[in-house]
Amino acid sequence: MAHKKAFYAQSGGVTAVINASACGVLQTARQHAEAIGKVYAGRNGIIGALTEDLIDTSVESEAAIAALKHTPGAAFGSCRYKLAHEHRAQYERLIQVFHAHDIGFFFYNGGGDSQDTAYKVSQMRAEQAYPIVCVGIPKTVDNDLPITDCSPGFGSAAKYVATSLREAAFDLSSMCRTSTKVFVLEVMGRHAGWTTAACALAADRGGDAPHILLLPEVAFNEQRFLAKVSASVERQGNCVIAVSEGVKRSDGEFLSASRSKDAFGHAQLGGVAPLITDLISSKLGFKCHWAVADYLQRSARHIASETDVQQAYAVGRTAVEFAIDGRSAVMPAIRRVNDAPYHWEIIEVPLSEVANQEKLLPSHFISADGFGITEAARRYLAPLILGEAYPPFKNGLPDYVCLRNVAAPRKLLTTFAL
Amino acid sequence: MAHKKAFYAQSGGVTAVINASACGVLQTARQHAEAIGKVYAGRNGIIGALTEDLIDTSVESEAAIAALKHTPGAAFGSCRYKLAHEHRAQYERLIQVFHAHDIGFFFYNGGGDSQDTAYKVSQMRAEQAYPIVCVGIPKTVDNDLPITDCSPGFGSAAKYVATSLREAAFDLSSMCRTSTKVFVLEVMGRHAGWTTAACALAADRGGDAPHILLLPEVAFNEQRFLAKVSASVERQGNCVIAVSEGVKRSDGEFLSASRSKDAFGHAQLGGVAPLITDLISSKLGFKCHWAVADYLQRSARHIASETDVQQAYAVGRTAVEFAIDGRSAVMPAIRRVNDAPYHWEIIEVPLSEVANQEKLLPSHFISADGFGITEAARRYLAPLILGEAYPPFKNGLPDYVCLRNVAAPRKLLTTFAL
Repeated sequence: MAHKKAFYAQSGGVTAVINASACGVLQTARQHAEAIGKVYAGRNGIIGALTEDLIDTSVESEAAIAALKHTPGAAFGSCRYKLAHEHRAQYERLIQVFHAHDIGFFFYNGGGDSQDTAYKVSQMRAEQAYPIVCVGIPKTVDNDLPITDCSPGFGSAAKYVATSLREAAFDLSSMCRTSTKVFVLEVMGRHAGWTTAACALAADRGGDAPHILLLPEVAFNEQRFLAKVSASVERQGNCVIAVSEGVKRSDGEFLSASRSKDAFGHAQLGGVAPLITDLISSKLGFKCHWAVADYLQRSARHIASETDVQQAYAVGRTAVEFAIDGRSAVMPAIRRVNDAPYHWEIIEVPLSEVANQEKLLPSHFISADGFGITEAARRYLAPLILGEAYPPFKNGLPDYVCLRNVAAPRKLLTTFAL
Repeated sequence: MAHKKAFYAQSGGVTAVINASACGVLQTARQHAEAIGKVYAGRNGIIGALTEDLIDTSVESEAAIAALKHTPGAAFGSCRYKLAHEHRAQYERLIQVFHAHDIGFFFYNGGGDSQDTAYKVSQMRAEQAYPIVCVGIPKTVDNDLPITDCSPGFGSAAKYVATSLREAAFDLSSMCRTSTKVFVLEVMGRHAGWTTAACALAADRGGDAPHILLLPEVAFNEQRFLAKVSASVERQGNCVIAVSEGVKRSDGEFLSASRSKDAFGHAQLGGVAPLITDLISSKLGFKCHWAVADYLQRSARHIASETDVQQAYAVGRTAVEFAIDGRSAVMPAIRRVNDAPYHWEIIEVPLSEVANQEKLLPSHFISADGFGITEAARRYLAPLILGEAYPPFKNGLPDYVCLRNVAAPRKLLTTFAL
C-alpha cells in the first residue's frame, strides 16, 4: 500500500533560514519512506494547494535538497494570503486537492498568521471529516511568536543587524571629526522591537554603538530623543541610532505614516530613518547618514547565525517526526535550557496557543530611559547569534540553489479563483 | 644617527580595507627599521599634522597592527579637509610640525581629493625647501581613481552589493506572487557608476536580478525606465533595480535633490531609492520595497573581497618600499596583467597624474539600452570580488581592533586654527 503523501509550504515574509527548515522536512521525510510518501510543496504557500499547483520535490537531487540549508528566500515561493475561517469554499477546495493527491500530512512553515492558517487546516480533520495530520513550523525574523524561545530566522537577522551596525559605527567614528556625526540604521519589526534590540549586541563596552535604540514598544518623545543625541555627540563625538520601522508617537501612530497595506491589512512601513535624520539635522545641525536594511536583513544568508540554522533545521526535522507520530495541530518550538553556554531542545506546543499571538519585547528587557536594553535582554539575545554558517562561494558570490520546481500533474478538472 | 620618522594618515570616506593598507605600511616600516624610524599617524588625517596631534604607532602591539588587516573604518580617524594651494600658512605649519618631529616620510591614504593633498605636500620639497619623501596610497569605494586598475576598497564594496542584491532577489522572487513585485537597492557612487555596475555581478544567467541598473553616467528617462520595469515584471514576475545615489536627470540635476554639501563642496546625496519606488507604485501600481546600503557597503569587512584585501595591503607595503627607495610624489597603483585568472602587479605612477581625476564608467561598459553592463564590464569587474577574507568572530560578531591611539608628546608651543 502506498503511503500518504505530504504537503509542505512556506508562508509570509521569508528569512535567511526558512529553506533550512525545508531541508529538515525533506531530508527527514526521505529518511522515513516507510511512513511518508513523496512530499509535494505548494508553489507560493497555501495558494499552491488552492490552485492545485503542487511541486514534486521527489525529482530534486539529494545535493539540491542539501543546498537548501544554505540558501535564503523561500525555495518554493511564499505568499501573503490568509484563509478566512468563514470562507468554507477554501477548505472544501483544500480537501478536494489533498484527496486527489492522497495527501495525509500538512506542514506549514511561517509566522503567527501562518500558524493560524495551519491551525485552521488542522480543524478540517474534525469539521470536514478529512483525515490529515497538521504540523506548523515556526519562522519569522520578527521573533514575535509566543512560547518558543525564539523564532527561526530571527537569530540570523539579529546577527546581520548587529554586525552591520558595528561596522557602520567603525565608519562613523572615523568620519565624525570633520563630517558625519550621526548614523541611523532602520530595521524591521512592525510591532515587536526584537530586531532593534539585537542591534545593541554590537556594543561590547559602555560608550560603544549603538547609543540609542528607538523601539516600537516605547512611544517616541522628540525632546528626550534630541537631548540624548546631543549628549551622545558631546560624549563620544558621534551618535549611532537603531530605529525600528514601527516606532510610534505617543498617540500610537506610526512615526513613518503608512501609505499602503499588505494582504493581511497590515500597514507597509519603511522610511523612518530619513525622517529621524531630517529631524536631527534640522534641530541639532549635525550631518547625518542613514541606511535602511529592508530585505537585506532577512535574506543575508552569508552572515547567518549557525545557532539559527541549526534550530531552523531542527524544527523542520521534528515537524516530520511529530507527524509520523500522528501528532496533529501542534508546532515544534524551541525551549531554552541554559543561557550560557546556550542549550536548547525542541518541545511540542499546540497550534491553538501560537496562532495569531504576538510576543513583544517585555518591559524588563527595556532600559529605564527606554533607549536601550537591559542585561536580561542581552543574556536572552546573545546566544542566538552565535556561530557562523557560511554558504559555499563561487566566483566571489554565495552559491545558492534554485530548485527545478517541477509541477506535479494536475488531477482535478476544476480550478479555484483566489 | 636616528632615522627619519614617517607620517601616515587616512583621508576621505573610509572603506572596509583602508586599515589593511595601514597594516601594510606599519608592518613594512617595522621591517625596515634601518631606514625608517617610528611611524606617527595623523589623528583624523592631515588635521592631525596641522594640529600636531600625532599618534605614536610604535606603542601598538604586533597583534594589534596585524588585526588592522581585518578591521573596517579608519583606525586613526579620517577627515574631509582639503589643503588650499593658495593657503601658504597650512604648508608652513606642516613643515613646522614635520620638522619638530623629524618626519622625513609622508604617506597619505585616500581618494582623488586626498591624492591632491599628497601631491601638494610633495611640492613642499621644492617650494619650501623641506626634504620630505611623499607617497600617496590609493583608496576609494567609488573606484574612480585614474590609471590604477581599481581602487582598494572598491572590490569589497562590490562584493557586498552583489551579494546583498543576490540575496534580496531570492527574497523578492519568493514574495512576488502575492506581494512585493519590485525591489530597489540604492548604492553609493556620486558620479561614477562602478558600484552600481558591480550589482550586475549578482546575475548568473539571463533573467537573473538585477534587471535594471540606474547609472549616474546615463540620464534618467522616466518613460523608458517605467516601460523596462513593466516588461521585467511581465517576464519574471518581479523586478530588481540597483540605483546609484548620483543618478541624474537629462538636465544634469541629481534625481535626489541635494540638501547639504560636504567639506569639499560636494552635494550630500541619498534617498533616491524611495523616490524611485514612489514613482513605480504611483505610475504602475506595483508594491515595492527599497533598501539604502549607505555606510554598510563601505564598512562590510565581514564580506570583504580577499583580492581587495591583498591589494590594499600591497599598496601600503609598496608605498613604504617606494619611500625607502627615495621615490617621491608617486603612488603605487595596480596594473592588470590578466583578466582570468586575474593577475595583477604594483606599478609606480606620478601623483600629478592621479590628483583630482575622476574615472567614470566608460561607454563600452554600458549596455546599449543604458540599463545594464556589457560583457567587457563583467570581465573587468568579476575578478575584483574573488575570494573571501572573513574576520575572526567573537561572541557571534566580527572581532575588530581598536588601537590605543596614544598621542605623541607635543613639541610646539604654537597651535593652529583649522
